[in-house]
Amino acid sequence: MSEAISASKYVYSFEEGRADMKDLLGGKGANLAEMTRLGLPVPPGFTITTDACTEYLQRSKLPAEIRGEIAEHLRGLEGEREQEFGGQQDPLLISVRSGARISMPGMMDTVLNLGLNDETVAGLAEATGDNRFALDCYRRLIQMFGNVVQGIPTNSFERILQASKDEANVQHDTELTAAELRGVVSRYKERYRQHTGEDFPQDPERQLLTAVEAVFASWDNERAQVYRRVHDIPHDLGTAVNVQAMVFGNRGDRCGTGVVFSRNPSTGDRELYGEYLVNAQGEDVVAGIRTPKPVSQLQQDMPEAYSQLKKAARKLEAHYRDMQDIEFTVESGQLFLLQTRTGKRNPGAAIRIAHDMVIEGLIDPEEALLRVDPEDIALLLHPKIDPDNKMEPIARGLPASPGAASGTVVFDADEAEQRGEDGESVVLVRPETTPDDVNGIVQARGVLTSRGGMTCHAAIVARGMGKPCVVGCDELNIDIGKGVVYTSAGTFRKGDLITIDGATGKVFAQEAPLIEPTPSSEFSTFLSWADEMREIEVRANADTPEDAQTAREFGGQGIGLCRTEHMFMHPDRLQLMQQMIMAESTDERRRALQKIEPMQQEDFAALFRIMDGLPVTIRLLDPPLHEFLPEVSQLQRDVENMRSNGASQEEIKEKQRMLRRAEALQESNPMLGQRGCRLGLLYPEIYQMQTRAIIQAAADAASEGVDVHPEIMIPLISDARECEKLYELVADTADLVLDGTSTDVDYFIGTMVEVPRACLKADEVAQYAEFFSFGTNDLTQTTYGFSRDDAEAKFFHYYLAEGILDENPFVVLDRGGVGSLIEMGIKLGRSVRPNLEVGICGEHGGDPLSIEFCAEVGMDYVSCSPYRVPVARLAAAQAQLDCSAVD
Amino acid sequence: MSEAISASKYVYSFEEGRADMKDLLGGKGANLAEMTRLGLPVPPGFTITTDACTEYLQRSKLPAEIRGEIAEHLRGLEGEREQEFGGQQDPLLISVRSGARISMPGMMDTVLNLGLNDETVAGLAEATGDNRFALDCYRRLIQMFGNVVQGIPTNSFERILQASKDEANVQHDTELTAAELRGVVSRYKERYRQHTGEDFPQDPERQLLTAVEAVFASWDNERAQVYRRVHDIPHDLGTAVNVQAMVFGNRGDRCGTGVVFSRNPSTGDRELYGEYLVNAQGEDVVAGIRTPKPVSQLQQDMPEAYSQLKKAARKLEAHYRDMQDIEFTVESGQLFLLQTRTGKRNPGAAIRIAHDMVIEGLIDPEEALLRVDPEDIALLLHPKIDPDNKMEPIARGLPASPGAASGTVVFDADEAEQRGEDGESVVLVRPETTPDDVNGIVQARGVLTSRGGMTCHAAIVARGMGKPCVVGCDELNIDIGKGVVYTSAGTFRKGDLITIDGATGKVFAQEAPLIEPTPSSEFSTFLSWADEMREIEVRANADTPEDAQTAREFGGQGIGLCRTEHMFMHPDRLQLMQQMIMAESTDERRRALQKIEPMQQEDFAALFRIMDGLPVTIRLLDPPLHEFLPEVSQLQRDVENMRSNGASQEEIKEKQRMLRRAEALQESNPMLGQRGCRLGLLYPEIYQMQTRAIIQAAADAASEGVDVHPEIMIPLISDARECEKLYELVADTADLVLDGTSTDVDYFIGTMVEVPRACLKADEVAQYAEFFSFGTNDLTQTTYGFSRDDAEAKFFHYYLAEGILDENPFVVLDRGGVGSLIEMGIKLGRSVRPNLEVGICGEHGGDPLSIEFCAEVGMDYVSCSPYRVPVARLAAAQAQLDCSAVD
Repeated sequence: MSEAISASKYVYSFEEGRADMKDLLGGKGANLAEMTRLGLPVPPGFTITTDACTEYLQRSKLPAEIRGEIAEHLRGLEGEREQEFGGQQDPLLISVRSGARISMPGMMDTVLNLGLNDETVAGLAEATGDNRFALDCYRRLIQMFGNVVQGIPTNSFERILQASKDEANVQHDTELTAAELRGVVSRYKERYRQHTGEDFPQDPERQLLTAVEAVFASWDNERAQVYRRVHDIPHDLGTAVNVQAMVFGNRGDRCGTGVVFSRNPSTGDRELYGEYLVNAQGEDVVAGIRTPKPVSQLQQDMPEAYSQLKKAARKLEAHYRDMQDIEFTVESGQLFLLQTRTGKRNPGAAIRIAHDMVIEGLIDPEEALLRVDPEDIALLLHPKIDPDNKMEPIARGLPASPGAASGTVVFDADEAEQRGEDGESVVLVRPETTPDDVNGIVQARGVLTSRGGMTCHAAIVARGMGKPCVVGCDELNIDIGKGVVYTSAGTFRKGDLITIDGATGKVFAQEAPLIEPTPSSEFSTFLSWADEMREIEVRANADTPEDAQTAREFGGQGIGLCRTEHMFMHPDRLQLMQQMIMAESTDERRRALQKIEPMQQEDFAALFRIMDGLPVTIRLLDPPLHEFLPEVSQLQRDVENMRSNGASQEEIKEKQRMLRRAEALQESNPMLGQRGCRLGLLYPEIYQMQTRAIIQAAADAASEGVDVHPEIMIPLISDARECEKLYELVADTADLVLDGTSTDVDYFIGTMVEVPRACLKADEVAQYAEFFSFGTNDLTQTTYGFSRDDAEAKFFHYYLAEGILDENPFVVLDRGGVGSLIEMGIKLGRSVRPNLEVGICGEHGGDPLSIEFCAEVGMDYVSCSPYRVPVARLAAAQAQLDCSAVD
Repeated sequence: MSEAISASKYVYSFEEGRADMKDLLGGKGANLAEMTRLGLPVPPGFTITTDACTEYLQRSKLPAEIRGEIAEHLRGLEGEREQEFGGQQDPLLISVRSGARISMPGMMDTVLNLGLNDETVAGLAEATGDNRFALDCYRRLIQMFGNVVQGIPTNSFERILQASKDEANVQHDTELTAAELRGVVSRYKERYRQHTGEDFPQDPERQLLTAVEAVFASWDNERAQVYRRVHDIPHDLGTAVNVQAMVFGNRGDRCGTGVVFSRNPSTGDRELYGEYLVNAQGEDVVAGIRTPKPVSQLQQDMPEAYSQLKKAARKLEAHYRDMQDIEFTVESGQLFLLQTRTGKRNPGAAIRIAHDMVIEGLIDPEEALLRVDPEDIALLLHPKIDPDNKMEPIARGLPASPGAASGTVVFDADEAEQRGEDGESVVLVRPETTPDDVNGIVQARGVLTSRGGMTCHAAIVARGMGKPCVVGCDELNIDIGKGVVYTSAGTFRKGDLITIDGATGKVFAQEAPLIEPTPSSEFSTFLSWADEMREIEVRANADTPEDAQTAREFGGQGIGLCRTEHMFMHPDRLQLMQQMIMAESTDERRRALQKIEPMQQEDFAALFRIMDGLPVTIRLLDPPLHEFLPEVSQLQRDVENMRSNGASQEEIKEKQRMLRRAEALQESNPMLGQRGCRLGLLYPEIYQMQTRAIIQAAADAASEGVDVHPEIMIPLISDARECEKLYELVADTADLVLDGTSTDVDYFIGTMVEVPRACLKADEVAQYAEFFSFGTNDLTQTTYGFSRDDAEAKFFHYYLAEGILDENPFVVLDRGGVGSLIEMGIKLGRSVRPNLEVGICGEHGGDPLSIEFCAEVGMDYVSCSPYRVPVARLAAAQAQLDCSAVD
């Protein structure tokens, strides 16, 4: 029986509810109750439960008991407010708001000022001494009730209001006189009658009950049903209804309304931050007609209210253990809180607040770590455009690498290199970039391309260097010949100053003031907590000493991928590389390689010194050889030019030889062609040279006292026998070098796992590999059969827009497909070699969602570009916390 | 004790052994024993067991008991032959041969004529009345014993023989007189003494025991050890030694020696077939100095021996239940069998014999099916070069499609088409072919290319058409400009007659007489047994009515893959296709498609009629659109030519537009680019048009009474959502067509599974697919990360030569990698759709080893090119028999 009784209770006052009663009271009702329970000044009210809603929907009428309960709670409100609902003098006005367990924009929402009618409006006028105010409240009630409860289009009311203003020859609502407003009210009522066939209800109780029924009924309207279907919300939850006494911030000079943060959302400082308007309603703040005052001014204007607000903010922050964004109203000097929620903040503030709250003992470090979005970390490491600057962009592309850069427009990589070296700030602008442009990118402040996706060449290289980059900006029409870039919003030329924002993808045709990043001590402390928390290591992809230095400064725990081919792209080395490729015999090739060897050795020695005590994973040569030669079409042009310029037969012949070699090296699908270990098998002398350089460099560094940990990585393995042959080649070569030195160097030999077959046969491959590094860029390409360049240029925009892909799988690792191969690979690999070291070195190594996956499947490390290292450190800690939560 | 005694038995007479005693007696010993047991006239002998060998190797001396046992068995031989070993008159001569369980070419082999010495040689001369013969036997004994037992190089004996011939001023051994031979013998003995420091042993028993020990010792020589290591043969098996009485086919005119097959190995006729020489030894047959007679002549020469031989052949055939290849010797009119083994036969004979033996009740149909190599079936369906023709090839490439073709050399596809249509026999010779060349291939008798692998474009197209094709013939240096092809062995020109043999890869610079295939009634009966046996269906890949007709005639059970794009390659249609691609709006594209639609419909209707009652699987458009446009470089040249030829601005502009479109469609890795279902999603109007054409054609055919089973296949699915969208598109379009007709058509919608992700997510994909067809060409490419064209051109030769790959995975399906994805795909697919129809339509569908895999994993059908259908029918039956054997 007691259950039946309790089930028959349909109405809860805010004093009775709690935050954890969302199922019954809805989200808004539970939160208003929670604030009330904390003793904060919330306008009194009550909630009609979701049970009442489901009953209503079943029977198409309100449960019989409910009227009594509502009436009883209404009396309570009247008592608290010392006003009467429908009273002739200073009448109690109330609001009705829907509030489901899960917020649902598809449903009817709010009706304010219930309780007004032709008579009580006079009482309100008298009580406030403001006839205009009272009539405006009444007008608004009819409009909202008419629209929300009866479905009368809002614009049919707005047309009446506009006509009245036109007649009065005024611009703003506020300029209408009381008499004119009285006319509006009467036309509104006429409109209401036309549409519904009956008069606007004068009985306040009927107003209330009709509004409650309308909210309940709205649960089943079509919009709401579609919304629930799309968002997978059960249809039988029902919504609650909140009935609350109205308070007014616009009833005089001792009134006001505002929004306040419990801490400064820009800096994280522990101070009230926000703004308010005296004698105003929330709408007025939004409308922006009057300029609000900073909330500190409230201390002078209404010291009592300010002091209450400050205490309330502290209390809410302590209760919710996070920075709060609070809506408040002061009515005749009395403070009311209307809403509180977790406040948004900028990246720097997010870390500062999380850090401070730990110091204050409000939260523990684990919780602090979960409070910051790892992507925000990246933004903190780069310059940004001064947010006070209100420039208009002339184009917008993909935000490929965060940070902002200003500089003069240069179209040519070599020119960018030259002018950059001369100390000029330049932005390299190109349709797209190729490996030939890397020297220019190094010296440019930023890169802008009209083509390419988030993982095109420019994007990857720029991210690797931590340089701002905007790609795929297809609004740009670049005419390199004329030196002009056209956009629909204007043009800019070679030599002009532009600014790009790689965090938003915006391009500005002018210089902009930039704010340089200044990582704080809180930042370091915060990341040190992340380091304590995470189990997965974070290494960096670094090809140069500069990259390695940056990586180490950002907390990288070694190099997870050093791409040796990038070491050959500087012009002087490229020439030797080309000699090697043009060699007509193994001997000739060996001689070219001999010249390259000391350079490689120097490169590696520098990396070992910087990474003293940490692993350095070096990938043997991977790309197809034709990438080191000019393009065939270029060579054809060269030959023709040499002919017309009267070059010697000898020179022409040599160029023709290169042309023929480039032609012979052409492939129909180079991604799947003669590269990686396939090169190493066909030209073992290349891998032998690289191995000698690595091991000799390691031995030299070790003899200086450096603690070296070389890991030699064989790329593109698809079968254990490839790995076996190359493992032997590398080990034999390495041991031969060590036999000639007095130093002992421990080295690992492992493989990059980047085609599906290596995962499927990982138990065989692991017999010849001491570590696996998942190359998820190529693994994604081969698993999907997507060529990254082609897919992003040709059909990903459609796939993402149509929801065929939820995410670009080159950005966020595809768990179901690629991920299942990775899991298989790890499981099979460790089945034969339990201590197999496993990491990831694709672009995904810097993506928080992908890092979470890597932690879940038991990888030892992730490796990402140096500027992503701090991001990955936090993401890895969060992944650990998520895993622990699951355990 | 009895075991110890039996263990101490080291010698078995041929009468005591059996075929199943190979472990103890070795292969040769067991087989000689088996023939003896059958009562066949085998020269008497005995076998010293492998146990004796292992004992010998452990103790480094022969077991004590063995001398006694050998002596005892020797007495037996003497009794049977009525000769004495070492006897002064008509002495018994014996041979010693090694014989392990597994044949091992690395070991010492044979010593003949043991028992001869300075005295017994006279007895032999007297008994045979041929002094020369006796001395020659003695000479050979010293040479073989010296070489095999003592390691004296054979050529040091040969030099002595040559010197003697030079002195006698004769050319052949046979011209030496008895006196001269006596001189040779004495010089041989001198040489023996020089090398060993002792005289050639005169004691016959010592000769025998020394030879036996030498055979045993040879088990452990280095060559043998290496051989065993390479072939994974255990080192502790040991070898047996066979000691057998010598019989001579060269002791007079009532002697002879020959080889005979129990059936004709060329035709399969049930007749003795072979040849022999009167008064000759096996060596004489091999030496080829005298011309042997056909074995039928033996009937006249020695009717008794012939009749014995015929009976023996029948008996052996009945015993071994297969055609036998028998070595025999007749000594003084008496027949001896020296060896029997299963005889090799040509493809036609193989089927004839298998068929006849079933009819004769010798074997059952199951065994008959296992006796024929499926690849032989393919050879029977194509013309071949008359085997009597002894032409020398001028080059040799890869045998890409079986059959031989003669014709005039043409370098241009259009010219080949023209001249072919005019009735001329032409062979299309090109560096490589592209889809543009298909019209020429259709009209050519055969195709020859200097580049490409077994699965290059030319190879695939030619196999599909059943046309002879040789590819990758890199000895050819084709100068199209001059119209000449150079090879190291000569040149040929445009217009010359050449012949290619696609079964061997040989190229001849002349016309050759060809033998046309004439499939026999036995062929049909044999394949009908295969059809009864197999459970897996065989469909054909067919794009044209001609292909479909061929497939049906060859027993194809439907079309497993119709590639609609091949229907657009004819010039008139290609133009419409290009209009479609060049369209600048969806409307314009639709208009071009509208013109194509009736043509497609006609194509499909023809296929449905031919395949009345059988399924027709049609793949929607798959290749990237740029394949239908000329190449960019060609278009660039076109534009330049038009300019210099004074073409109109209008024309030039149009060509430039095509150039720009072709440039825009270029991709860095087209295999992984915008093709397959990605096209269908971006340009739904293409798939809609094709679906309408298919369903309208099916409805039309059905209304004529044809039993239609259309299966519409969506290519290149990597995610269920792609499949879902296109399933709906196709189903909606199809149902709309059917709503407009009075005919009911049942259709299937399914997908091609050709990237790893489709296998990994097959449970999701199968929700929107009624069938899976594994496209194993692309699946192999993506699983390995091998681009087929590039891999075969650049590194497969190395991979195959080095044993990194056992087989080209594009020819034989890779079970461990690609196969495991297929198994996963089938299992996951059927987990949500138990009746999911599963097949394979890659090149592997015609490969016997791959078909075996398909049957094992439970596929419903394989689909292959029409000319491979009979091959697949047999392979499928064999797969079934293998599976049953395992069960």
